[in-house]
Amino acid sequence: MILVGTETRSIWVNADGWSVGIFDQRRLPWTVERLRLTTVDACAHAIADMATRGAPLIGAVAAYGMALALRVDSGDEALDRAYRQLIATRPTAVNLKGALDRVRSVVARLPEPERAAAAYADAALLCDEDVAINAAIGRAGLEILQELAAQKPGRPLNILTHCNAGWLATVDWGTATAPIYMAHDLGIPVHVWVDETRPRNQGALTALELAGHGVPHSYIVDNAGGLLMQRGQVDLVIVGTDRVTRNGDVCNKIGTYLKALAAHDTGVPFVVALPSTTYDPTTADGASVHVEERAANEVVSLEGPDADGVLRRIAVTVSSAANPAFDITPARFVTEYITEKGRIVGAEALAAALTP
Amino acid sequence: MILVGTETRSIWVNADGWSVGIFDQRRLPWTVERLRLTTVDACAHAIADMATRGAPLIGAVAAYGMALALRVDSGDEALDRAYRQLIATRPTAVNLKGALDRVRSVVARLPEPERAAAAYADAALLCDEDVAINAAIGRAGLEILQELAAQKPGRPLNILTHCNAGWLATVDWGTATAPIYMAHDLGIPVHVWVDETRPRNQGALTALELAGHGVPHSYIVDNAGGLLMQRGQVDLVIVGTDRVTRNGDVCNKIGTYLKALAAHDTGVPFVVALPSTTYDPTTADGASVHVEERAANEVVSLEGPDADGVLRRIAVTVSSAANPAFDITPARFVTEYITEKGRIVGAEALAAALTP
Repeated sequence: MILVGTETRSIWVNADGWSVGIFDQRRLPWTVERLRLTTVDACAHAIADMATRGAPLIGAVAAYGMALALRVDSGDEALDRAYRQLIATRPTAVNLKGALDRVRSVVARLPEPERAAAAYADAALLCDEDVAINAAIGRAGLEILQELAAQKPGRPLNILTHCNAGWLATVDWGTATAPIYMAHDLGIPVHVWVDETRPRNQGALTALELAGHGVPHSYIVDNAGGLLMQRGQVDLVIVGTDRVTRNGDVCNKIGTYLKALAAHDTGVPFVVALPSTTYDPTTADGASVHVEERAANEVVSLEGPDADGVLRRIAVTVSSAANPAFDITPARFVTEYITEKGRIVGAEALAAALTP
Repeated sequence: MILVGTETRSIWVNADGWSVGIFDQRRLPWTVERLRLTTVDACAHAIADMATRGAPLIGAVAAYGMALALRVDSGDEALDRAYRQLIATRPTAVNLKGALDRVRSVVARLPEPERAAAAYADAALLCDEDVAINAAIGRAGLEILQELAAQKPGRPLNILTHCNAGWLATVDWGTATAPIYMAHDLGIPVHVWVDETRPRNQGALTALELAGHGVPHSYIVDNAGGLLMQRGQVDLVIVGTDRVTRNGDVCNKIGTYLKALAAHDTGVPFVVALPSTTYDPTTADGASVHVEERAANEVVSLEGPDADGVLRRIAVTVSSAANPAFDITPARFVTEYITEKGRIVGAEALAAALTP
């Protein structure tokens, strides 16, 4: 996608042919700054310190971290050390472990002189595969947008999204945003209502993405979507998800459920974008999902630049806060799922298509 | 109610017997500071500059402004001048005009030497009437809380509220908060989920009120209420309203509708507190209500104190924003209305009870 005028992915190999580039997501959306990663230590630090984020992207950074380690020392001991260092950064991240296991199994059976090049090649392949998955999700969603555009000629399609399921959290395209970028690139007029997504305001990242790519959009508080749907100003809601359970319930950023309810009440289609790796047939339903309770500090204070561009942290309230991070949208409110295997309606079809 | 350890109303006559006290609501919730109003100019400035807010409270400040004017000059010309000065501060505020008309009609027929005292007496009466209305709403809601408490013994009642329909916007008690304060004062254990209420974060005022009066509460982002209801952690939702239309639709702060949907979906009672003056039989339904679109600046930046207590304004996003101020909760989602005339179920009963 395009950011500050340049077509880019969220991770790349620099022109030197070996160092790795990412955006410093700790500075977004206020400052677009690139980091040059030259060592496995730098990759591990970037993951642990959240300079990079999003499950697929973390996996890609880790894969390149293995390549950077092997470039210096391609022995078995160095390979193991790099693996252990990288996996320790976010021990519960499934994509991270998957990427590391994959690179290790590719290179371990090779002679040492071939390992670094093989790791670079596999990291690049892993990135390309992620792009392909998101592009396929995008094509599935694009069909829906094309159908809606045909029904509502002469005006932009209004799409509401919650949180950031965009390309900055994947290698490119994003999940919920992929259909939007594709429609925009095809000249279908779209306008995106971007939910702020308190408490962490990830909507500001989505807004940054859309602005960079030139997609018309408006930032709104999380309270506003219901009225917009009541007024007929939303044609479609698309969200990403952290986990879809066996029965099709959708665990996603807190507040998603409220938008699904409003969509249901006002007859607006509610679409969930997911790569098949996000489907979890081992969990029966949303009620079985443990919802993370995050630090109250995310609610009671907020950081941003003042008029002089100096980052300040200010208090939002004087009281104590509660901060549950996710909610559950029951499957009955999901109009369609869009996946790299196409459009899927209903939990049974989802299970049939995505159960490994 | 109690604030910083002192039992107080939101407006009072000081110990000198003539000057008028209010809280400077521009400084809340960060600093609790009292203003001493000694002239009609000061009252007009306090209303225009939003040092005071809330329809009933603005009416009371204006009534005392008339008294302060007449104390200096009780002639017809001074009376007219004070009236015109005060009504110009917020030309669309119905309560303001009502209060001014009332005081003027009381004093205009009196001999000049009696006018100031009569204006003070009428302003005090107007305040007492507002307190009585809110207390009656509180008693109606208290019945509901007592019924719920009897059904759920052994744990606090969890009540969710949106925006600030509290005593700082009235003379005392508030509307939505009155039943909560009454239950707390009677020793019924309550815990309040306080919606932040972006973009203006009026939840911080509600939290300040509850903290001052010692009522247990937690501040939450507007996204959180749905999950809390899904989990059975909300026993009751109570909100205030800006206007209830003939058919019972509820116009209230943006985001109210989303909480009503979640309450409906999860079987949580949804109660709307209103003085009968808020019922508008001249408007057929919510779809006929013009929803104010407020300045985007409220969404894209936010003010609060930094760690050193210095008020700072920070950016929330780099994008443009939309900012509708209210939404419409259809009457079918309202379990009960609570009014100074008691508990009312259904739009027909509401019309019968409240149509003037």
